Amino acid sequence: MSGDLARDMLAMGAAARDAARALREASAETKATALTSAAAAIRAHATDILAANAEDLAAAKDLTPAMRDRLLLDEKRIEAMANGVEDIAALADPVGRELARWQRPNGLDIRRIATPIGIIGMIYESRPNVTADAAALCLKSGNAVILRGGSESARSSAAIHAAMLEGLRAAALPETVIQLVKTTDRNAVGAMLQGLNGTIDLIIPRGGKSLVARVQSEARVPVLAHLEGICHVYVHAAADLAMARNIVLNAKMRRTGVCGAAETLLIDKAILSSHGLPILEDLKNAGCEIRGDDAVRAIFPAAKPATEEDWRTEYLDAVITVKAVDGVDDAIRHIETYGSHHTESIVTEDARAAERFLAALDSAIVLWNASTQFADGGEFGMGAEIGIGTGKLHARGPVGVEQLTTFKDVVRGTGQARP
Amino acid sequence: MSGDLARDMLAMGAAARDAARALREASAETKATALTSAAAAIRAHATDILAANAEDLAAAKDLTPAMRDRLLLDEKRIEAMANGVEDIAALADPVGRELARWQRPNGLDIRRIATPIGIIGMIYESRPNVTADAAALCLKSGNAVILRGGSESARSSAAIHAAMLEGLRAAALPETVIQLVKTTDRNAVGAMLQGLNGTIDLIIPRGGKSLVARVQSEARVPVLAHLEGICHVYVHAAADLAMARNIVLNAKMRRTGVCGAAETLLIDKAILSSHGLPILEDLKNAGCEIRGDDAVRAIFPAAKPATEEDWRTEYLDAVITVKAVDGVDDAIRHIETYGSHHTESIVTEDARAAERFLAALDSAIVLWNASTQFADGGEFGMGAEIGIGTGKLHARGPVGVEQLTTFKDVVRGTGQARP
Repeated sequence: MSGDLARDMLAMGAAARDAARALREASAETKATALTSAAAAIRAHATDILAANAEDLAAAKDLTPAMRDRLLLDEKRIEAMANGVEDIAALADPVGRELARWQRPNGLDIRRIATPIGIIGMIYESRPNVTADAAALCLKSGNAVILRGGSESARSSAAIHAAMLEGLRAAALPETVIQLVKTTDRNAVGAMLQGLNGTIDLIIPRGGKSLVARVQSEARVPVLAHLEGICHVYVHAAADLAMARNIVLNAKMRRTGVCGAAETLLIDKAILSSHGLPILEDLKNAGCEIRGDDAVRAIFPAAKPATEEDWRTEYLDAVITVKAVDGVDDAIRHIETYGSHHTESIVTEDARAAERFLAALDSAIVLWNASTQFADGGEFGMGAEIGIGTGKLHARGPVGVEQLTTFKDVVRGTGQARP
Repeated sequence: MSGDLARDMLAMGAAARDAARALREASAETKATALTSAAAAIRAHATDILAANAEDLAAAKDLTPAMRDRLLLDEKRIEAMANGVEDIAALADPVGRELARWQRPNGLDIRRIATPIGIIGMIYESRPNVTADAAALCLKSGNAVILRGGSESARSSAAIHAAMLEGLRAAALPETVIQLVKTTDRNAVGAMLQGLNGTIDLIIPRGGKSLVARVQSEARVPVLAHLEGICHVYVHAAADLAMARNIVLNAKMRRTGVCGAAETLLIDKAILSSHGLPILEDLKNAGCEIRGDDAVRAIFPAAKPATEEDWRTEYLDAVITVKAVDGVDDAIRHIETYGSHHTESIVTEDARAAERFLAALDSAIVLWNASTQFADGGEFGMGAEIGIGTGKLHARGPVGVEQLTTFKDVVRGTGQARP
């Protein structure tokens, strides 16, 4: 890394530390003002943002249609981005909430109060709207943020960042509350992963497997991981057929590119013909490729054979792997062996089987008779999410503003000394 | 690392994974039975444990008196250890608690349920009682644990571990729920820090600076850090004199070797003579060495000059650094510059000054008119603690059984698919 880059990055860290101190004590009103002003600035500068995005698109070579779509902004997407920032502004302030309160026999009064984490390093890839979403979620939760987006969306992100800064100025908050790393030098990411001299409290990576793998191997600070969603739907022997057809089709095909999309379908052997066949027909008719084990291929010859690798794969595409299982324990065993602890659903009318499934699995989200595509902060009523956490520490499942806070214990006494 | 050691450590990880699965579904009664049986076994094997401890003490060379005291067990300490395990057995089960519940407009019912973290790697130094305490806290919170104690207490820890295994057997839980690394090869610690092939969910280091530094630089899994307690007491201009004398003396001298002991005293300049002088006399009479800034030394010439390093030092001894400050903002600035975000106390009758102090500081515990030595899980009413967390993620302050859990979202539907 060049000395200049190293110096610039450390300066960002130091500036973020000062900004975090100011932000920690900012009122709920100040933060909401900053966000509504930022939303207005996004709308006011829509033309600039679209022009920057057009430059990004023109400069980008060798993009797949999916990548191009992720990078593309249009008026509708800009309006959605502004609305998203306003929705976050309207959320209850997560800072200062009393999470618990208790008294001790000696008269000490203890309150557990939600506080900001401090400084968040956000490392993401091509979607430029993450610049607005992540900045708004961090600001609302009282955290200074250092954003490092993908190089292919650098101009779009810079234009969106400029609008966010207008919001900060309108609320008289330091502009260093939301900093954007503008260099495309990948060493900047390395510097963030080292923690910028102890200033970064948490790294949140959003992106493909290689980004997340790099972050997890290099980071010297805590990481809020958003790993793969190898999500399962298990159609139990006592499933209602119509419900099972509806849920499986939705879980797989509503949107195939989201982390809550189902990748593997488990069906009890006893209902392979009665339920499995119509479900597989639905999927095939919707354009989904089916890969199955021997039992599945025996009743549905159009299915390709599933390999060992298939059970471990997050397709994010119109492909599903289907396995016939011997009841709920066999389903649980499969999910624990091959799953990624993201989201799993059981479809059944048998409450005992459902409760066993819900209790035994160790995933962030477990559902009974509902689609895995509900794995989403908006659908959970959190307003917005910075992602779906697949780790076990601090935050799991849809991570909204509340999970972007920590707490401190505030103890009020009357002169107590410890015996 | 030898191939044998690497293989043995990975086998411990794999065994812990199976044990964690069994433990996750164990009932509250089963876990309580295991713990009360373990406590009984500690008492029944007191002679064996004392004999093992005598061997450790005989083998240990070059121990300071403080280290020797940490290593030493006697009948009273063994009884305290058994009582501690029984106290943990009697706590409410932290697993399965409903942390939140809400309904969505589409009828989905979401419950956030506390669950075990999974597998905890506990790396500690000489106190052998940590073997019982940590094992009991992890078991109560449903976590399998891999314990790696200090080599100087290896025989004592093995004897205590044997008693804990009796408890597991009495409850028909797998013995691999509580595993002890018996080799003194330091590479075993390195293997744990690499995560044992993805099995360790959390590393908790308890020990001196060099251990914690090694863990933080090498760990590839989340770490629940217990760093230094550079704790401050701030005597504000409106402090009650008698209360301030009592709190400062207690905060520094009750026990000097605990992380909640005060290391720095801040006193408002306006009351340096009226309050500072009697407080410093109290400390001196109690055998405390005083290091001061120029203003303090002007009124208390017996004080040695404080160096820049002193303000950053956790003495864990009868030494205190004292600084005269210009009001609450100056005190906050000092604590933010030199503190370790552990525990800070303000002594004042002025509610506005107190609230400013409590709100502005970013420490895990902030107190008003109470001693910093209350920074303790038992004093907080948590029954027992695995330590005082100084990080910001997941757990902070006294870490008891509740903070050794995570959660999952359990969603019950009636066939909902996402629009």
